[in-house]
Amino acid sequence: MTRIWDPQTRFRIWFEIEAHATDALAELGVVPKEAAARIWEADKAAGDFDIDRIDSIEAETKHDVIAFLTHVAERTGPEARFLHQGMTSSDVLDTCLAVQLARASDILIEDLDALLAVIKRRAYEHKLTPTIGRSHGIHAEPVTFGLKLAQAYAEFNRNRARLVAARADIATCAISGAVGTFANIDPSVEAHVAEKMGLTVEPVSTQVIPRDRHAMFFATLGVIASSIERLATEVRHLQRTEVLEAEEYFSPGQKGSSAMPHKRNPVLTENLTGLARMVRGYVTPALENVALWHERDISHSSVERYIGPDATITLDFALARLTSVIDKLVVYPARMEKNLNKMGGLVHSQRVLLALTQAGVSREDSYRLVQRNAMKVWESDGELSLMELLKADADVTAALSPQEIEARFDLDYHYKNVDTIFARVFGEE
Amino acid sequence: MTRIWDPQTRFRIWFEIEAHATDALAELGVVPKEAAARIWEADKAAGDFDIDRIDSIEAETKHDVIAFLTHVAERTGPEARFLHQGMTSSDVLDTCLAVQLARASDILIEDLDALLAVIKRRAYEHKLTPTIGRSHGIHAEPVTFGLKLAQAYAEFNRNRARLVAARADIATCAISGAVGTFANIDPSVEAHVAEKMGLTVEPVSTQVIPRDRHAMFFATLGVIASSIERLATEVRHLQRTEVLEAEEYFSPGQKGSSAMPHKRNPVLTENLTGLARMVRGYVTPALENVALWHERDISHSSVERYIGPDATITLDFALARLTSVIDKLVVYPARMEKNLNKMGGLVHSQRVLLALTQAGVSREDSYRLVQRNAMKVWESDGELSLMELLKADADVTAALSPQEIEARFDLDYHYKNVDTIFARVFGEE
Amino acid sequence: MTRIWDPQTRFRIWFEIEAHATDALAELGVVPKEAAARIWEADKAAGDFDIDRIDSIEAETKHDVIAFLTHVAERTGPEARFLHQGMTSSDVLDTCLAVQLARASDILIEDLDALLAVIKRRAYEHKLTPTIGRSHGIHAEPVTFGLKLAQAYAEFNRNRARLVAARADIATCAISGAVGTFANIDPSVEAHVAEKMGLTVEPVSTQVIPRDRHAMFFATLGVIASSIERLATEVRHLQRTEVLEAEEYFSPGQKGSSAMPHKRNPVLTENLTGLARMVRGYVTPALENVALWHERDISHSSVERYIGPDATITLDFALARLTSVIDKLVVYPARMEKNLNKMGGLVHSQRVLLALTQAGVSREDSYRLVQRNAMKVWESDGELSLMELLKADADVTAALSPQEIEARFDLDYHYKNVDTIFARVFGEE
Amino acid sequence: MTRIWDPQTRFRIWFEIEAHATDALAELGVVPKEAAARIWEADKAAGDFDIDRIDSIEAETKHDVIAFLTHVAERTGPEARFLHQGMTSSDVLDTCLAVQLARASDILIEDLDALLAVIKRRAYEHKLTPTIGRSHGIHAEPVTFGLKLAQAYAEFNRNRARLVAARADIATCAISGAVGTFANIDPSVEAHVAEKMGLTVEPVSTQVIPRDRHAMFFATLGVIASSIERLATEVRHLQRTEVLEAEEYFSPGQKGSSAMPHKRNPVLTENLTGLARMVRGYVTPALENVALWHERDISHSSVERYIGPDATITLDFALARLTSVIDKLVVYPARMEKNLNKMGGLVHSQRVLLALTQAGVSREDSYRLVQRNAMKVWESDGELSLMELLKADADVTAALSPQEIEARFDLDYHYKNVDTIFARVFGEE
Repeated sequence: MTRIWDPQTRFRIWFEIEAHATDALAELGVVPKEAAARIWEADKAAGDFDIDRIDSIEAETKHDVIAFLTHVAERTGPEARFLHQGMTSSDVLDTCLAVQLARASDILIEDLDALLAVIKRRAYEHKLTPTIGRSHGIHAEPVTFGLKLAQAYAEFNRNRARLVAARADIATCAISGAVGTFANIDPSVEAHVAEKMGLTVEPVSTQVIPRDRHAMFFATLGVIASSIERLATEVRHLQRTEVLEAEEYFSPGQKGSSAMPHKRNPVLTENLTGLARMVRGYVTPALENVALWHERDISHSSVERYIGPDATITLDFALARLTSVIDKLVVYPARMEKNLNKMGGLVHSQRVLLALTQAGVSREDSYRLVQRNAMKVWESDGELSLMELLKADADVTAALSPQEIEARFDLDYHYKNVDTIFARVFGEE
Repeated sequence: MTRIWDPQTRFRIWFEIEAHATDALAELGVVPKEAAARIWEADKAAGDFDIDRIDSIEAETKHDVIAFLTHVAERTGPEARFLHQGMTSSDVLDTCLAVQLARASDILIEDLDALLAVIKRRAYEHKLTPTIGRSHGIHAEPVTFGLKLAQAYAEFNRNRARLVAARADIATCAISGAVGTFANIDPSVEAHVAEKMGLTVEPVSTQVIPRDRHAMFFATLGVIASSIERLATEVRHLQRTEVLEAEEYFSPGQKGSSAMPHKRNPVLTENLTGLARMVRGYVTPALENVALWHERDISHSSVERYIGPDATITLDFALARLTSVIDKLVVYPARMEKNLNKMGGLVHSQRVLLALTQAGVSREDSYRLVQRNAMKVWESDGELSLMELLKADADVTAALSPQEIEARFDLDYHYKNVDTIFARVFGEE
Repeated sequence: MTRIWDPQTRFRIWFEIEAHATDALAELGVVPKEAAARIWEADKAAGDFDIDRIDSIEAETKHDVIAFLTHVAERTGPEARFLHQGMTSSDVLDTCLAVQLARASDILIEDLDALLAVIKRRAYEHKLTPTIGRSHGIHAEPVTFGLKLAQAYAEFNRNRARLVAARADIATCAISGAVGTFANIDPSVEAHVAEKMGLTVEPVSTQVIPRDRHAMFFATLGVIASSIERLATEVRHLQRTEVLEAEEYFSPGQKGSSAMPHKRNPVLTENLTGLARMVRGYVTPALENVALWHERDISHSSVERYIGPDATITLDFALARLTSVIDKLVVYPARMEKNLNKMGGLVHSQRVLLALTQAGVSREDSYRLVQRNAMKVWESDGELSLMELLKADADVTAALSPQEIEARFDLDYHYKNVDTIFARVFGEE
Repeated sequence: MTRIWDPQTRFRIWFEIEAHATDALAELGVVPKEAAARIWEADKAAGDFDIDRIDSIEAETKHDVIAFLTHVAERTGPEARFLHQGMTSSDVLDTCLAVQLARASDILIEDLDALLAVIKRRAYEHKLTPTIGRSHGIHAEPVTFGLKLAQAYAEFNRNRARLVAARADIATCAISGAVGTFANIDPSVEAHVAEKMGLTVEPVSTQVIPRDRHAMFFATLGVIASSIERLATEVRHLQRTEVLEAEEYFSPGQKGSSAMPHKRNPVLTENLTGLARMVRGYVTPALENVALWHERDISHSSVERYIGPDATITLDFALARLTSVIDKLVVYPARMEKNLNKMGGLVHSQRVLLALTQAGVSREDSYRLVQRNAMKVWESDGELSLMELLKADADVTAALSPQEIEARFDLDYHYKNVDTIFARVFGEE
C-alpha cells in the first residue's frame, strides 16, 4: 500500500497518462506517430525517474507537473514537446489520484476478503458455543459466540459492498483541458486514456474531477473504520479480567507491562480503536474539500496529500491487524459457560414472563411477578436461583406448575434459529 | 418532513409494527386471531394517541416502549397482552427509525429531483452563455454558464444515486427479540412486518439494527450538504460587487442591511453554507455510534434523537432553498461578457502557446514567449491587449503570422464540445 | 438555560443594547436626552414584545433587526427614530449573543460547581475504599474508589478554569458600525453599552465580533463533554454484570427492559455518552465559522442558531444528569474487595519484582521469575495463589525469604500516599 | 519542529526522565548514589542510542519502554537495574510527550510572534490606505487596509494567549507508578523530575496524565488553524482577477499553470486553507481520546503518534508560510481606490440615511428614500452617481441641501477613529 503513494509510482502513472494521451493525439493526427512511439521508447531506455532532478526543477518553477515534464523532456529529446498538448496539470494529477485510489481500493477489498474469510471460519467454529448476550453491558439472554461473529461478517460484507461502490465513484478519468471544455483536446483522448488506465470517463469536469467523489470515498473509509472499532471494542470487553471469555494471542517473549509482570493486555484492539479515530478524523477534511471555488482552487491538494496515503495505509494496516487478531483469538468456552450461569438463571426471565402471559396473567402483572424474584437474585450476586424462587412464589405457581417453570430454563431453546441466521448471513451451504 | 418526526407519527408507526407482528403471531397460532383483529379495531376506534398520558407513564417507568404499551392496553382492553410477544423494545424502536429514515429519504429524493429539474432548465437556458472559467479565482479560459450548471447537475445526480443506496442501507426491519436470536419469536413475524412496512429483513441483528447502516446514511447526507455548499459558494462569488455576474432574487420590500440601504447580499447562499456545516457536523457523531458495546448499549439513542430530525429537516430545507435560489437566480450575461474581456485577451494565452509548439518552438520557449507578453497585460490591469503585444514581438512573429495569432483569439473555438458534454450529462435528447 | 434562548429574552437584550446606546448618544448630544428617556418609559409601559408582529414584519423585510426596530417604533412613537443611530445589525446581534453565551456560561459554571461538590463528597466518603485499578481493562494494582473520584474532581476543576477563560473570550461588546470603523458612532457608546451589559469592549471588530472567540468557546464545551464521557464510561464499566462494583440508582417502579424483567441498565451514563458525541459534533462547525469572507458574511449565523442553544442546553442537561448519577451512585465496597482478590494476588506482582531487584537479581531475571509464576495464576483464573507459588519457587526463595515474600502482599502499602494526593487535589484541609 | 519528533530525541528525553528519577531515588537512599552517577556517565560515553537495536528488542518484547531499558542496560552495565524503580512505562511516555508538546509550543509561540511582528509592520504601513469594506462580498463602507491587518493582529494575539494557556495545560510531569498511587515511588521523585524537565507536577494521575489536557491543546491548535484560514481566505479574495487589490509575491521563474502562461494564482493561501482543514481534523480524535477506560487504555497512543507530530509540524509550517505571505504581500493601493469608487458612491448611503433622520425624517422613510436611489446606481453598475441622484430627488432635497448631501460623501470622515482602534490593538506608542 505504501508503494502506491511513493514518488516513483506517482511519476510512473503521470508518464503513462501523458504517453497514452499522446498516442491518442497521434491517432487524431495532432502529433506525429513517431513522436508518440519515441516517447515510450525513450522512457523504457531511461528507466526510473530522477526524483532529485524533478525536485530541483520544481524548486525553481514552483509547479510540480511542469517540473516533471521538463525532466521527461531532458530524457526524451525534442519529441517531448508533443506531450501535454491541450492538457492541463489537473488532467494528470486528478487522473493519477484516481488510479492511486482505485489501486488502494483493490488492496482494501482484498483486506476485507481476508478478514471476511477469517471471521467466517471462526464463526462456524463457534456456531454453537454458548455465551451470554449483553445489552448495556448487563447480562441479557444467551447467544452463541458464532452469532457475534456472524454479525461482524454481515457488517464487513456491507462494508465491502460500500467500498466497491466508493471505488467506482473515484475511478474516473478527466483529460478535458484547462477548464474542462475540451477546447484544445478532443474528448476521444480522454476515452483512450480512461480505457488504458482502467477508469471510466468523467462526464463533466472543471479542470478538476469534482471532489464530491473523493468525499464519498473517504466517508466510506470512515464507516469501515467505525466497524473495525466495533469489533475491536468487543474483543477488549471480552478480555477484561472479570469477563475473560476471549483473549488476544500473547506470544512467548511478549511483555505486557514494564512494571507488572502479570499483565496480558488487549493492546492490539486498543490500538485499532485509536486508528479508527484517525481514519474517521479524515472524513471532515474530505467533506470540506468539496466546495472548491469556481472551476477549482487548490485547497484540496494539501489535504489529499495527507489523507490519500494516511487514510488508506492506516485502514490497510488496521484491517490486516484485525484479521490477525480474529484469526488467532484465544476463545475460552468454559469461561463463557461460567459467566452465562453466574446470574442464577436471570437470563431466562423473559421466557417465564411470556409463559405467565400465555397462562392468562396480564403483561403488567407477569412483569411484576418475575421482576420481584429477579431482583432478589440480582442482589444476591447470583447466589440465589431464579428457578427456585419462582417455584416458591405462590402467585407464580398459581399460573405455572413447577415443571412448566423448569422448562423455561433450557439453553437449547435459544439456539433453534441459529441455522436460519447463518443461512441468511453466509448463504445456504 | 417535520411531521415524520413528531410523536404522533412515531407512536403510529410503533403501533403498526406491533399490530402487524401480532397478526403474524396469530397466523402462527401463538395468539388468538380475534385478539389480533381486536387490536386494530380498538385502535381505529380510539384515534390519536394521548401523548400526555404516555409521557406520564414514562415518568414512572422510565421506559418509553413500556409506557406506550401500557397506554395501548388502556385503549384496547385485555387483548393488548398479546402485543409485543417475544419482542424487545428495540424491535419496535429500530424498525420505526428505519421507517422514518426511509420516508425522510423519499422526501429528500424528491427534493433532489426538483433541484435537478431546475438546474437542468437553467443549464439549457444558458448552454451557450459565454462566461469566464476561473481557477484559483483567477481568469482562466472561457466556459459557458450552462456548463457550470451541467457540472452541478452531474454532481447532484450522483448524490441522488448515493441517497438511493443509503436509503436501501437503512430500510431494514428487525423483529428478532432480546438479543437477536428469535428465541421467543419466529423469523416469519419479521418477514411479515418487513413487507407491511416497506422494508427488507435485517439478516442478523443483536437486539438492535447495526449502526454502520445509519453511519453510512448520515455520511451520505454530509456529502450532499457539501455539494450544496459548493453551488452556494459559486453563487456567492458571482454576486460579489466586483463580479456581479448573477444575483439571488431580491424581492420588493426586502432590506439588505439595517445601516446601508444600498446593500443586496447573497444571504440565502451564505445561509446554505452554514447549514452545510451543520449537516456535516452530524456525520462524526453518527460514525461514533457504530461501536456499541456487545449486543448493544443505548448511547446511540440520544444522538439519533438529535440528528435524525435535525439532519433530515435541515437538508430538506437546504435543498428546497437551493432549488429556489437557482430557479430565480438573476443572471447577467452582459456582465459576464464584460468580465470575460477585461483581461486584454489573456484567456487565450494557452492557444497561442500550443500554436507556437505546433510551429516548432520548444514547449519551454513557447511558454516563456507567451508569459513575457502576458505579464505585461496582467500588470496593465487589462489595458494592454495580448494579441497586439504578440503581434509586436519579433520572436513570436518569427513562428506565427499575424493572421495565425488572431485566429487564436476566437471564442467559439472553446465551445465546440459543449454539445458533447451536455449529452454526457443529460443524456441524448 | 432554555430561557436564555427564547425569542422574548433575545428581544429584551436587543432592546437594552439599543436603549443603552441611545443613552450614550444622548450624553454626547447626538440625540435628545428626552428621547432616550422616552424609549425606556415606552418599553416599560408596553411590557413583553409581540413576537408574532415582529415575525410578520420580518416576513416582508427579510431582515430581523429591521423588523424588531419597526415593532419598537410602533410601541414607542417618533422618538424611536433615535434608536440604532450609526449602528449596524451586527452590533445588536453579536453583542446579544455575547450576553447570551455569558449567561449560559454562568449557568454551566454553576453546574460544574454542583458537580464538583458532589464528586468531592463522594471522594472523601470512599477515600480509603479499596478497589482494583485497571489498565487496559485488566487488573493492575490496588487504588481506592476515592482516588478515582479525586481524578474526576481534578479534571472537572480544570474544565471549570477553561470555561471561565472561554467565557472571558466571548463576553465582548461591539458597537462599531457598519464595518467596524466607528464612522457614525463614537467609541464611547460602545464603552457605555459594554459596561451596562457586563461585557468588555471588543478592541477591533469588522461589523462582527471575530468568530475565533466563539470557536474557542465551543471547543471548550467539547472538551468538557469529553470529560463527561470519561466519567460516564467509568460508571458503565463498573455496572457491568461481571464487575458490578457500582450502579446507577434504580428507582422503585423503574423498568429496565420491556422483555427482560431482571435488567438494571446504566442508561443514564449511556445517554451521557451519546450527549457527549453531540456536543463534540458542534466543535467543527464552530471552527469552520471563523473564516468569514472579508469584513463578514452571514454563514456563521445559521450555525450559531443551532449550536448556541443546542450545545449549551445539552451540556447543562448533561452536567446536571452526571451530578445526579454521582450523587446517588450505589457503591458496593464488598464487591470491590471480592474483585480485588479474585486474581490470586497477581496485583502484587510488581512489588515482588522490585524486591527481587533490591535483593540483587537483575531486572530481566526478576521479571522472568515473577512472570512465570504469574502466568500460572492467570491461567488458573485466580484459583492458584501467587504468594504460594513464589514461596515454592526455588529461584525466588534463593533471593527472598518466605516472610519477605509475604510482606509484599500488603494492601495498606499502596495507600500511604492517598493523603498526599487528596491534599494536592482538594487543597489542605 | 521535526527534530522534536524523531526517535533519537524521544529516547534522549526518556533517558533524562529515567536518570533524573534515579538521582531522586538515590537522594532518598533507595538506590546507590554511585549507580545514579554511573548511569549518566555511561550514557555520556555511549552517545546516541542505537535505534535499530531498540527496534529489534521491541520486535520480540512488543513493548517499547522495556526495549529501550534493555538497550540502556546493555550500554550501562549492572547499575542499569536501578533505573525505572517503582515506575511504569507511562511515567516515561507521558512525561516525554509533555516535554515534546511543550517544546513544540515554544516553537509555535515563536512562530506567532514572528507573524504578529510582520502583520504589525504591514498594518502601520497601510494604516491609512483606503479600501472598501465588504460584508457578504458586497461593497459596504470604507475601511483601511491597515484596519484589516489590525484585526488579524488582534486575532493572532488572542491565539498566542490561548497557546500559552494550552502549553501550561499539557506541561505536566507524572512519575506516580503503575496506577498513580505512588505505591512504589515517593512523590518527591516526581517533583525532582518535573523541575529538571521544566514541567509542573500532575496533581493526580492514573498511570497516565489525563487526556483532557491534550484535548484542550489540540483544540487550541484547531482554533489557530481556523484563524490562519481566515487571513488566507482574505488574501485569496483580494487576489481574484476582478478585485486584485493584493497579490502573493510571484517569484521570477515561477509558473502559474502548465497550460495557461498568464496565470498568477494565490496558491500559497489556498494551500494554507487546506492545511487548516487538516489541523482542524485532528481536534475530534483528540477529543475522543479523553474517555480512556478505567485507569487507562492505550487507544490514545496511536492517535497521538499521528497528531502529535502532524498537528504541530503542519501548524508550524503554516504559520511560517502565512508570515512569509503577509511579509511579501504585493499591495495595490491604486486598485483599492479604483474599486472603492466603482459603485457610484453607494458606500456613503448610510451617512445620507443618518443625515435624513437627523433632519427629522422617520427612519423608515429615510431608508426608503435612500434605497430607491441606491438601487438605480446598483443597477447601473456604478455608472450613475448616488450623490447626483439624491440631489435630483425632491423628497431628499426637501430635508437636505445639496451642500449637506455632498458633505456626506467624504472619505476622511470614516477614518477619524483609526488611531483609536490602533491604540486599542497595538497599545499606545
